[in-house]
Amino acid sequence: MNRDEPYELYYWPGIQGRGEFVRLALEEAGVEYIDIAKDPGGEEVAAQKLMRAMNDASLVTPPFAPPFLKSGDLWIAQTAEILFYLGSRHGLAPADEAGRLWDHQLQLTIADWVVEIHDTHHPLGGAFYYDEQKSESRKRSKLFCEQRIPKYMGYFENVLVRNPAGNRYLVRNALTCADLSLFQVIEGLQYAFPKAMKKHADNFPNVMALHGRVRNRERIAAYLASDRRLPFNEDGIFRHYPELDG
Amino acid sequence: MNRDEPYELYYWPGIQGRGEFVRLALEEAGVEYIDIAKDPGGEEVAAQKLMRAMNDASLVTPPFAPPFLKSGDLWIAQTAEILFYLGSRHGLAPADEAGRLWDHQLQLTIADWVVEIHDTHHPLGGAFYYDEQKSESRKRSKLFCEQRIPKYMGYFENVLVRNPAGNRYLVRNALTCADLSLFQVIEGLQYAFPKAMKKHADNFPNVMALHGRVRNRERIAAYLASDRRLPFNEDGIFRHYPELDG
Repeated sequence: MNRDEPYELYYWPGIQGRGEFVRLALEEAGVEYIDIAKDPGGEEVAAQKLMRAMNDASLVTPPFAPPFLKSGDLWIAQTAEILFYLGSRHGLAPADEAGRLWDHQLQLTIADWVVEIHDTHHPLGGAFYYDEQKSESRKRSKLFCEQRIPKYMGYFENVLVRNPAGNRYLVRNALTCADLSLFQVIEGLQYAFPKAMKKHADNFPNVMALHGRVRNRERIAAYLASDRRLPFNEDGIFRHYPELDG
Repeated sequence: MNRDEPYELYYWPGIQGRGEFVRLALEEAGVEYIDIAKDPGGEEVAAQKLMRAMNDASLVTPPFAPPFLKSGDLWIAQTAEILFYLGSRHGLAPADEAGRLWDHQLQLTIADWVVEIHDTHHPLGGAFYYDEQKSESRKRSKLFCEQRIPKYMGYFENVLVRNPAGNRYLVRNALTCADLSLFQVIEGLQYAFPKAMKKHADNFPNVMALHGRVRNRERIAAYLASDRRLPFNEDGIFRHYPELDG
């Protein structure tokens, strides 16, 4: 990659979505990047640029879906893979194989959790609007709040408690992309399911402490306070529908 | 890893499930492995061994869910990550970074597809039996058969057509784990949704040719004909419920 050429992040405008996991890594790394979703021409222009890149028939490594990152000649898709790539380049992952694999494994488990979070409001799939699948969403969300939130939070609590290097980070004794992503999931769940999260939080003190620690990091705090951070809304992954918050 | 020590694959007994993607890679690689699911003591003993490993409190890198692979001192979970690991060790992935990333990206897209396939019979989540979510499954499966099968097959067709090294493999001019996994998805979809797949197959000739090519590889053909290959059944990911086959 030409070091003078900034990364380009392609994602849908108007939502945090999966693009946000990549943004948090880029912001923490302090690197320059062009966020196509925030094109100065507005959201319509941004969406056109995204679609043009997606549908570029000359691309021999096409992405299946956003987000994708352009890094020089490389086009990299799949959130967990983008973070795998950025992590190794910007000190946000261990350098050795065992450490990188463990970090990536946690990232992939977070990705599974994000799919389940999306499915709380879209159990029948993305082709129906939420309003067309409200009763199914209620059933799925009830189980999600009662069983899946504590299952995943309990898992990451365990990972922190068992970390031989201490309970400050998921992997060893330094921040990785997985910590940033876990912060984002907790932040999003607190937005989407405030009642359920209030009920569970006390049982997972190390996860909640990690969330607070990431939130207060200098670059992350500055990013969250900036207008680069979009607010959560009901078009993204984390949606607050009071009727789903068990 | 001690080279004399075979891999140990941990997965649920009685189903192909996600473990099968790992088995296909191990079989193609021709390496020795212990398949915990096929413990000579039977399925109950196998399940106990799996649970004991899952719940081992001394493990500092615990898996969230099966499958996981023990390779010497390393415990590796997440299907796509296990294949990333095995691919680089056994000539089933490119050696350079760009090639490995592209191969892993395809593997992660297959993993997304597998989640959607599972959700055709469990749209409300794994806590309800299929019989408790039949009408929801019909809605989700209809869309899956009409929209998602051609969407994913069209994507992989494109990847094959655009491959500058030819249309025999997904990545360059050699077999990778992603080819083996795409074979397994097509095989499973043909079992689960024979009508829908018959309708779509002709539109994606390169994907179907790849499926046939993998099926006829010497080691894969021998594995499929052996009793190590469990048949598909209605406890796994790919389930044949005629009422869902649009």
